[in-house]
Amino acid sequence: MLRSPAPSTRMRAVDLIRKKRDSGEHSREEIDFLVSGYTRGEIPDYQMAAWLMAVWIRGMSRSELAALTESMLYSGEVLNHSEIPGKKVDKHSTGGVGDKTSLILAPIVAAGGLTVPMISGRGLGHTGGTLDKLESIPGFNVNLPLGEFRRVLRECGMALIGQTAEIAPADKKIYALRDVTSTVENIGLICASIMSKKLAEGIDALVLDVKTGSGAFMKREEDAANLAEVMVETGKRMGKKVVALITDMDQPLGRMAGHSSEVIAAIDVLNGGGPADLRDLSVELSAWMFFLGERTKSVEEGRRLAETMIATGQAKEKFRQGIKLQGGDERVIDEPSRLPKARIHLIVPAAAGGHITAIQCEQLGIALAMLGGGREKKEDKIDYGTGLEFHKRIGDRVEQGEPLVTIHYNSDAKLAEAKSLVAGSYEIGKAAPDKPRPLIRRVLGA
Amino acid sequence: MLRSPAPSTRMRAVDLIRKKRDSGEHSREEIDFLVSGYTRGEIPDYQMAAWLMAVWIRGMSRSELAALTESMLYSGEVLNHSEIPGKKVDKHSTGGVGDKTSLILAPIVAAGGLTVPMISGRGLGHTGGTLDKLESIPGFNVNLPLGEFRRVLRECGMALIGQTAEIAPADKKIYALRDVTSTVENIGLICASIMSKKLAEGIDALVLDVKTGSGAFMKREEDAANLAEVMVETGKRMGKKVVALITDMDQPLGRMAGHSSEVIAAIDVLNGGGPADLRDLSVELSAWMFFLGERTKSVEEGRRLAETMIATGQAKEKFRQGIKLQGGDERVIDEPSRLPKARIHLIVPAAAGGHITAIQCEQLGIALAMLGGGREKKEDKIDYGTGLEFHKRIGDRVEQGEPLVTIHYNSDAKLAEAKSLVAGSYEIGKAAPDKPRPLIRRVLGA
Repeated sequence: MLRSPAPSTRMRAVDLIRKKRDSGEHSREEIDFLVSGYTRGEIPDYQMAAWLMAVWIRGMSRSELAALTESMLYSGEVLNHSEIPGKKVDKHSTGGVGDKTSLILAPIVAAGGLTVPMISGRGLGHTGGTLDKLESIPGFNVNLPLGEFRRVLRECGMALIGQTAEIAPADKKIYALRDVTSTVENIGLICASIMSKKLAEGIDALVLDVKTGSGAFMKREEDAANLAEVMVETGKRMGKKVVALITDMDQPLGRMAGHSSEVIAAIDVLNGGGPADLRDLSVELSAWMFFLGERTKSVEEGRRLAETMIATGQAKEKFRQGIKLQGGDERVIDEPSRLPKARIHLIVPAAAGGHITAIQCEQLGIALAMLGGGREKKEDKIDYGTGLEFHKRIGDRVEQGEPLVTIHYNSDAKLAEAKSLVAGSYEIGKAAPDKPRPLIRRVLGA
Repeated sequence: MLRSPAPSTRMRAVDLIRKKRDSGEHSREEIDFLVSGYTRGEIPDYQMAAWLMAVWIRGMSRSELAALTESMLYSGEVLNHSEIPGKKVDKHSTGGVGDKTSLILAPIVAAGGLTVPMISGRGLGHTGGTLDKLESIPGFNVNLPLGEFRRVLRECGMALIGQTAEIAPADKKIYALRDVTSTVENIGLICASIMSKKLAEGIDALVLDVKTGSGAFMKREEDAANLAEVMVETGKRMGKKVVALITDMDQPLGRMAGHSSEVIAAIDVLNGGGPADLRDLSVELSAWMFFLGERTKSVEEGRRLAETMIATGQAKEKFRQGIKLQGGDERVIDEPSRLPKARIHLIVPAAAGGHITAIQCEQLGIALAMLGGGREKKEDKIDYGTGLEFHKRIGDRVEQGEPLVTIHYNSDAKLAEAKSLVAGSYEIGKAAPDKPRPLIRRVLGA
């Protein structure tokens, strides 16, 4: 409590906590001091926790956010793929139910001539994770050491791995602390976490798919737009090309949620089929990647290139090559029955006739996790064959007793609870709802 | 991140942190869960730190504050002195420079027939602490076990000790965390800390001396009044008689600051002398203790009783008895030269002539600490003989070169710095200032 009359020039965490508590703005040096001190273990968890809560409540300026992202980025290794010619591009999604576009667009974009060094995450809570979906392919290894990651990338233009200890260790440590101190849902902190990891990939351009709706972390479109805007600005400040698409998550993307089911759906799209929404969004995101990666002169041209990569089978062959290079059984491309599947099927019927007016999409994701097709805790094992098959979309007519969802499962430990959650997720009204909101709400940063 | 559809009824710290973060109001059970869980080590520092920051920023309702105080109070032993007849009363001061009223009023009130079970604190930063002042008396033991504390109390009606491990352990642990997470200066948290300790003393009534001005923690009178009001209400909710006097700390209390010097000043007052402000405040606080402790029918009668205790020498004899019972050399009462003293004296002269218009009282306390007469860090040893002697008060005329302060010291390690701090603490103007603000600004809760 002694306030020294001639304040020492040595920085102290306690003073920086006080500054943020009192709504002050940190300098770049102050943020570096906190992030690097915490990562090295010199600043204890309890001081970081107090600071994170002050940040959560008081917020950060754009320049503080850029400094935080950069400090977290440079807390570890920042990849450099300059030995590979051409642009490196990636996509990041904020997560939802049935969102498997990464499995489709990475092969499309790599087949189209760009390099996609994708570091992905795992599912937690109601959302699925790209790494978990890939691991449903027998043998697929997402834990490549960085040297191997580069080799795969050089050879086939795409590689999909998990965060390694070398990549943004500050983020790993800070995220774990946020999770237990109720400081997760903050746009600045989310932005810094995502962008520090993505920019460590050594990319030139990034397409963000920011989900909004009942199955997204950002339920309200304005929150999604705020996050998108902040991420775009942060990326641009750091010299990257970034756009964000705000996209619909009021209902699941595609007709299936679940790990092997989503791999099959991705192969369907690469075969020229698959559900329209999944296909459209994958093409749209690929088109932006082509455009930002300067492979095409326009997004429109990017769309045509993506369609060509599908139509000619080049994207499917790229996926096959990628699976093989990462140790997976590439025969799943032609023989999906090689993927794990559920033994039992249960139909959830409509309780009443009418129109589907809304879907509580997050609840569907929770039900899937309950059945073993997701994680409730980090250490939970996933049952890759478990899945939900959605028969109806918002606006569809449904008769009483008609199937809404088919549950594909192996364990009935929580079946009754999951079934009632699924049934309760569908709102059925007498009148048809207003026309559904568009799949792509808007594009920011273009 | 999984939000369970049927939320578990088990309480979790992370949910309570979120609730306070979002400006929610805690139930008594929730506060108990946090305080007892933290005290037992089941809730980690980092969660408590995040919660404290959320409390600091979002605030607490009066009922949350009462619950927090009570949880902290019952985290340890609550003393019960029912075997001693009559009322038990105490005083607490929020701390300042030269504030030694406890050494005066405890003997006055005990001599007057009430019981004063006083658990005091140590000095930190610019403020002095009663325990440290008592320890300047050779042999004085402030670390009595509770059994011994009771025995002294029974025998002489007063005992002065430090916080033991049994008393409000939650406060001890929470205070240490607040100190390193910049969550100290919050009225609710300060109130809970003070009141949980004071109410654990087993008292019927409490007089609060809330300091305001340049040497107080609460510089602004309205902040002091807010804290006072909250403490009075919290004490009354818990069935105690409580009043708060808002008193002046725009300049040091009395003519001396420093440990043995303040013991000497206290003896001077008990001998019927001493500086007017110190004597007046001590009598006033004693008078309120007599009144709240139902020893007198009015505060006015309390004042007369206090004056009588001084005039008859009964208060001085009570002090002598108390010192002896706590192992101290009671001969200091008549032979103050037995107390430690400084070897060297240095006069700080006025840089210009004029009137003293203001004193930066906190800086005087910092200068004293620098010279060894206080602590900068908890583990610092105090030089009991070091002191500052103040020759001028606000409003006094001063000639250029006339002594403002005499520094009594043993070590000149930081003498130059301390001297310049002392010199810079006095503002000298051409015109006399408006009449000084009264010593006792107002009384709350009466």
